[in-house]
Amino acid sequence: MDIFGNIESNVRSYCRSFPDLFTKAKGSKLVAASGKEYIDFFAGAGALNYGHNNDFIKKQVIDYIMGDGVIHALDMYTQAKKEFLVTFNEYILKPRKLNYKIQFPGPTGTNAVEAALKLARKVKNRTGIFSFMGAFHGMSLGSLAVTSNSYHRKGAGIPLDNVTFIPYCNTFSNGFDSIDYLTQILADSHSGVEKPAAIILETVQAEGGINVAPVDWLQRLAELCRQEDILLICDDIQVGCDRTGTYFSFERAGIIPDIVILSKSISGYGFPLSLLLIRPELDIWQPGEHNGTFRGNQLAFVAGRAALEYRKNTSLSDEVRLKARLLESFLKEQIASIHRQIEIRGIGMIWGVDLSRCGEGDLAKEVARRCFELGLIIERVGRGDTVMKIMPPLNISRDELMAGCQILGQAIRETLSRKSADGLKGAL
Amino acid sequence: MDIFGNIESNVRSYCRSFPDLFTKAKGSKLVAASGKEYIDFFAGAGALNYGHNNDFIKKQVIDYIMGDGVIHALDMYTQAKKEFLVTFNEYILKPRKLNYKIQFPGPTGTNAVEAALKLARKVKNRTGIFSFMGAFHGMSLGSLAVTSNSYHRKGAGIPLDNVTFIPYCNTFSNGFDSIDYLTQILADSHSGVEKPAAIILETVQAEGGINVAPVDWLQRLAELCRQEDILLICDDIQVGCDRTGTYFSFERAGIIPDIVILSKSISGYGFPLSLLLIRPELDIWQPGEHNGTFRGNQLAFVAGRAALEYRKNTSLSDEVRLKARLLESFLKEQIASIHRQIEIRGIGMIWGVDLSRCGEGDLAKEVARRCFELGLIIERVGRGDTVMKIMPPLNISRDELMAGCQILGQAIRETLSRKSADGLKGAL
Amino acid sequence: MDIFGNIESNVRSYCRSFPDLFTKAKGSKLVAASGKEYIDFFAGAGALNYGHNNDFIKKQVIDYIMGDGVIHALDMYTQAKKEFLVTFNEYILKPRKLNYKIQFPGPTGTNAVEAALKLARKVKNRTGIFSFMGAFHGMSLGSLAVTSNSYHRKGAGIPLDNVTFIPYCNTFSNGFDSIDYLTQILADSHSGVEKPAAIILETVQAEGGINVAPVDWLQRLAELCRQEDILLICDDIQVGCDRTGTYFSFERAGIIPDIVILSKSISGYGFPLSLLLIRPELDIWQPGEHNGTFRGNQLAFVAGRAALEYRKNTSLSDEVRLKARLLESFLKEQIASIHRQIEIRGIGMIWGVDLSRCGEGDLAKEVARRCFELGLIIERVGRGDTVMKIMPPLNISRDELMAGCQILGQAIRETLSRKSADGLKGAL
Amino acid sequence: MDIFGNIESNVRSYCRSFPDLFTKAKGSKLVAASGKEYIDFFAGAGALNYGHNNDFIKKQVIDYIMGDGVIHALDMYTQAKKEFLVTFNEYILKPRKLNYKIQFPGPTGTNAVEAALKLARKVKNRTGIFSFMGAFHGMSLGSLAVTSNSYHRKGAGIPLDNVTFIPYCNTFSNGFDSIDYLTQILADSHSGVEKPAAIILETVQAEGGINVAPVDWLQRLAELCRQEDILLICDDIQVGCDRTGTYFSFERAGIIPDIVILSKSISGYGFPLSLLLIRPELDIWQPGEHNGTFRGNQLAFVAGRAALEYRKNTSLSDEVRLKARLLESFLKEQIASIHRQIEIRGIGMIWGVDLSRCGEGDLAKEVARRCFELGLIIERVGRGDTVMKIMPPLNISRDELMAGCQILGQAIRETLSRKSADGLKGAL
Repeated sequence: MDIFGNIESNVRSYCRSFPDLFTKAKGSKLVAASGKEYIDFFAGAGALNYGHNNDFIKKQVIDYIMGDGVIHALDMYTQAKKEFLVTFNEYILKPRKLNYKIQFPGPTGTNAVEAALKLARKVKNRTGIFSFMGAFHGMSLGSLAVTSNSYHRKGAGIPLDNVTFIPYCNTFSNGFDSIDYLTQILADSHSGVEKPAAIILETVQAEGGINVAPVDWLQRLAELCRQEDILLICDDIQVGCDRTGTYFSFERAGIIPDIVILSKSISGYGFPLSLLLIRPELDIWQPGEHNGTFRGNQLAFVAGRAALEYRKNTSLSDEVRLKARLLESFLKEQIASIHRQIEIRGIGMIWGVDLSRCGEGDLAKEVARRCFELGLIIERVGRGDTVMKIMPPLNISRDELMAGCQILGQAIRETLSRKSADGLKGAL
Repeated sequence: MDIFGNIESNVRSYCRSFPDLFTKAKGSKLVAASGKEYIDFFAGAGALNYGHNNDFIKKQVIDYIMGDGVIHALDMYTQAKKEFLVTFNEYILKPRKLNYKIQFPGPTGTNAVEAALKLARKVKNRTGIFSFMGAFHGMSLGSLAVTSNSYHRKGAGIPLDNVTFIPYCNTFSNGFDSIDYLTQILADSHSGVEKPAAIILETVQAEGGINVAPVDWLQRLAELCRQEDILLICDDIQVGCDRTGTYFSFERAGIIPDIVILSKSISGYGFPLSLLLIRPELDIWQPGEHNGTFRGNQLAFVAGRAALEYRKNTSLSDEVRLKARLLESFLKEQIASIHRQIEIRGIGMIWGVDLSRCGEGDLAKEVARRCFELGLIIERVGRGDTVMKIMPPLNISRDELMAGCQILGQAIRETLSRKSADGLKGAL
Repeated sequence: MDIFGNIESNVRSYCRSFPDLFTKAKGSKLVAASGKEYIDFFAGAGALNYGHNNDFIKKQVIDYIMGDGVIHALDMYTQAKKEFLVTFNEYILKPRKLNYKIQFPGPTGTNAVEAALKLARKVKNRTGIFSFMGAFHGMSLGSLAVTSNSYHRKGAGIPLDNVTFIPYCNTFSNGFDSIDYLTQILADSHSGVEKPAAIILETVQAEGGINVAPVDWLQRLAELCRQEDILLICDDIQVGCDRTGTYFSFERAGIIPDIVILSKSISGYGFPLSLLLIRPELDIWQPGEHNGTFRGNQLAFVAGRAALEYRKNTSLSDEVRLKARLLESFLKEQIASIHRQIEIRGIGMIWGVDLSRCGEGDLAKEVARRCFELGLIIERVGRGDTVMKIMPPLNISRDELMAGCQILGQAIRETLSRKSADGLKGAL
Repeated sequence: MDIFGNIESNVRSYCRSFPDLFTKAKGSKLVAASGKEYIDFFAGAGALNYGHNNDFIKKQVIDYIMGDGVIHALDMYTQAKKEFLVTFNEYILKPRKLNYKIQFPGPTGTNAVEAALKLARKVKNRTGIFSFMGAFHGMSLGSLAVTSNSYHRKGAGIPLDNVTFIPYCNTFSNGFDSIDYLTQILADSHSGVEKPAAIILETVQAEGGINVAPVDWLQRLAELCRQEDILLICDDIQVGCDRTGTYFSFERAGIIPDIVILSKSISGYGFPLSLLLIRPELDIWQPGEHNGTFRGNQLAFVAGRAALEYRKNTSLSDEVRLKARLLESFLKEQIASIHRQIEIRGIGMIWGVDLSRCGEGDLAKEVARRCFELGLIIERVGRGDTVMKIMPPLNISRDELMAGCQILGQAIRETLSRKSADGLKGAL
């Protein structure tokens, strides 16, 4: 694998955590060149909710390519786009009584975030955006400005302006109430903070450490936005597409954001795609005002439509809720019991095992490394990368799910034991 | 097609110029649901240099999907990426004695431009970037700041800072010399302009109106950057990948940029992909400092590697240069002769027919509309969208190339005649 | 007085609150052309701590002008500057064991704030500044960015960047603790807020509504700055020069800011002057790096030195503390008793009578207007300008002080009665 | 003089060029503590057009202070302000048929520039400002952003945004025409430069190196602003108040700026004062929207009014024009003849002797040092501080003027001889 070290930029990262050469993948398994199989609790950072090479989707993808369907067409009218739009409207929007216009920006999450911020500023003719501490929204300059991680922010090379960060719901000490705080600074003519065009929200912070916003907090936030004439943008890139047990993550709170951003699993097959849902009265874009060569990825439309059928045919939401309970039980009973300082947080099929208070050192890093040895791919997130993030494909079998969880438990136990032994040795 | 108007955002644009429903595509032809065929002089804005559904590439794409190759893997090590890297290195870099590290950012051009600007600022620890008037680099906030079109810039909703625009080589009046100007403001302690981290360059401005930078201008610019310790970033997104008759557009000038950006046709099949070539000593990225879920689009690696083989097997560069002469002759002889104010500009297989001085009104728009009726898809670029852009797939057959050119000539003649007749009527 | 309306810009403001034509002034009295005398509880917004036309200072000013002393010399060496420096060092710095370098920027408070911010950013090589909600630091772009009042901020016409606002000590609800908040966001790698170069502080917010920071809060803030390597800038423009009962306002907390800004009463006679006190190791200015034609106002040096002698000869600090008690007693007993929702806040000889919760409407505005009719000049500050600000010259006689207070009491009582009567009428 | 080195900040600058301790001043002479007299070709950087301690003005200043006139009153109505307004209107505006509102911002030039920029952005609702290369407008953040000197700009510590620099009229090579350039970038939708709110102009760049804009260039600029709906701000801080032979420097071109900024000699006696002249329809300030404690410096009003009388009584403009010819002749005949590479530039009583092309090294610095030894105070300006700036009080006697010029000539000759001798020695 020297080729990567020799030719690929030093910026590469996941390959450092998962140092094997992957060749094939199916369902919840990744297979290395050596034949070693890995259970996948990472799921392409959320892009593979329907599993690797899902056969149902695959068939339609193959058929489309075989038939010389249009592969690239920018934002021209195509059959593939039409069918995606109709299906998304029929299967997702209508049943939820949601009325949104759909925009296809460049096919990555950050492109969509950029579009949302531009549109919000244009609609409200205000320059500011509020974002939450712990938020992750992307790496291009506009998205980076609303991303809170200092490691990434430093990469900008210029000051990141026009954004104010607010503590997220439950991550600040001493009963700090973010909504009260927001209310107060918006009401105060001397807060030094102008009313923003929008507040950008993750209902569950994934990169921030698996922080799940309570329903009433989400409702109070949405109400505040309404009262103050501030747009609410929901970045559902990672936790939309059924991840939390409903198609959109905000459904559990009964709120309706002004703009919703989807990406990652929206194409169903790991193909790049992203989209914005926009309340119709906000769709004041001029033609081509925001553009991009790969907006409207046709093959992703094909796969995305198939994915919408797949999730419907398999009653995937129900399945997620069932497995969520299984997962929650295991984590709270089998994992939390390993060390009294372990904290379990999550919803649906995204869960965090927070190891930040279980002693010093790179505990989580070592746990992840041991998991990998044992055949489990699992990411770390949160401050200091100390939270193990469990995010398998939604259609993972219960056996594989439990097998992965067992590996995680074993890795935590082993690592803590070794650390404890090392500590004793160190003390002697 | 009401579905699009009802559901898709008002931001859609190309569909307004090319209002038909497309279903299939092959080579240099797009096919509508009605069965009508169109010659494609647009080529996915440069993403389809090797033609729609190129059979050589298609076979490898199909095989990969059929074999359950990894489709999504962020920046993990995969067989598909490895083969792409090796092939790109062997076929492209080594023969040109180029020594670059390769970075895969999010798979759109603007993601790559963002990465390049961040890296340049980080390397040089300076905040400014110089860009050229007429430049187009993308729609996310960092890329938009170096894009000159006021229509797009207004979309930002905030001031776009840390960029200074310089007149492009041959687009300013009265013998203005951009390199002299650059030299002077960099030397002047009272120019008010700080030395930038980088200058971002298109060797041929495509969106800016098909402006081809002369070789000596490119050489003087590169030399100035070297002397002043400023990075030279070449955005080869649209005119790289053989478009100008060499693989990289800057080869004709014998210069070596510090950072090169490729996208569009790099995947060969219209799949989203982009990459940066970085001089090794500049590759000071920290792991994951710039990231993105769809970086490392595996299927695009497969198609991209196939495309590199395809271009080699078919001696595509030679073919381009031959057809370029054919094209140039036709345009200068058959098109320029229609009206003495028509200006022809271009290189390789990217040419512009500048109609801006052929009378008033939406001449170019009407020409494009008439072309579309006659079965030719052709885009307009430049100030006021007055330049017809001829950019077919590179492997278009000579017959189709000539057929498209004939349609363009017919459309210009007809439109000018009608306008002239209207003018006479208006004068009566 | 039509001349003013006809010729002077609409920006004029205090003349609207105090609409008389003033000709002469002495001690704590302003005299109008009509002969009407006003007690001055405004004191030139703090520039007249030693009274109008103080005879002791006046004599030295007259002598200097009569003797053709240098009046204007930028930052050349002059006898007047030398004597000021020596006296300030001997009388103020040495007795307090303070070791500061002195800089004379342009002679207004905002010029000095600009210099302080530039120096802090230069020293720390960071772009951010923290400021407090309610803060007022000036109207030029750098100072305005750290000023919180939205009315003033809107005047900038561009986004005001590189500043983060933090709630001030005791102005936020529910036991919010600013120091805890600061500690948390500085410790959190995902707060989205970079470590600032400096925190700029008023120990008593005057324009913000007479908010007095508690001693322990000031101490915790200073300690936090020390631990986090953040400069502490104390803007003592309005409440320095003996206003709070000690020469510097921060003396009561025993803290030593890294940079101190003085202006307003530093010249003793209402002449423009400002200065920075800089910890010697931070004085990394290059010669002339910050300049200005009126830096080093010679006549202000003469008057300023005389004022330093005057305050010493008259034991002014002791006098302030005595009168402060008198003032506090009166306000808490005679004024607070008028209405149970009146809140009294203050220290030394700067006090606020907060009328914001005493019913609706422009109560404070009407009280100020009635005071003016009755011969008292008094300003309003705070959110909505609802706090009457009592800030007479420090050497006001006790009789005049009490007379002014009586007028204020009368005005509040009368206005409340009238409002109450109006309310009754309105209700009938 | 150790006291200064020990206590005063390293930022002090002019004292390094003129290292003597000054005590008294009269007319065009400064007197040191030692009794040594210096002819003043510096004139307080333009603040002393009417000479040091001008007796006519002095009398009125003394009378005002003796009579306990109001010294400090912010922007309240005072007799002193009224008389200044009336006199300025009668003596300056009306005879020139100028219709302006007058604003008194904080009493330094940079405060006034800040106010002008804020007002322009507010009026036009645009964020950009154009400024000229070589321009100097002040050190606070807004003014610094339109100041071109990189030495000063670096002091900001943050990027200085929202300003575009344009080459000044005659300082760029090869027949570059700034007005053509401006016209072109404003007309070009792809210039990357948005239409600015205003262009800020010095009709003579003083700090920039004594560059005098030709009349037709000024007229074309004014016309361009009018056509493009861009405000023209004339910063007449240094070359207004009769310096160029007319009261306003722009009178020679017959143009009428939208906003004019005066400071420096407007108070006539070296007291801090500045003002804006605003076309009435642009005076959309809200009351107090821009403020400052020392706006409306009363003693400066008294002196300023006296100065207006003085210049009228002495027909100063005529006197300036006469002496200008004398000065020009001397410089072009006696100074330019010393070395064929000396360039003479100037107008009225501001002239530059450009030594930049007379060999290497700190020639100008040594000339200035030698002048100082010989009893002449003279500043250096321009790129590299290589231009000797001749700017005596306007009422300097012809004898003193000639005496100063003789010293300058002697210093240049001596320094060139010595350098030449050193060069010979170095060559041996």
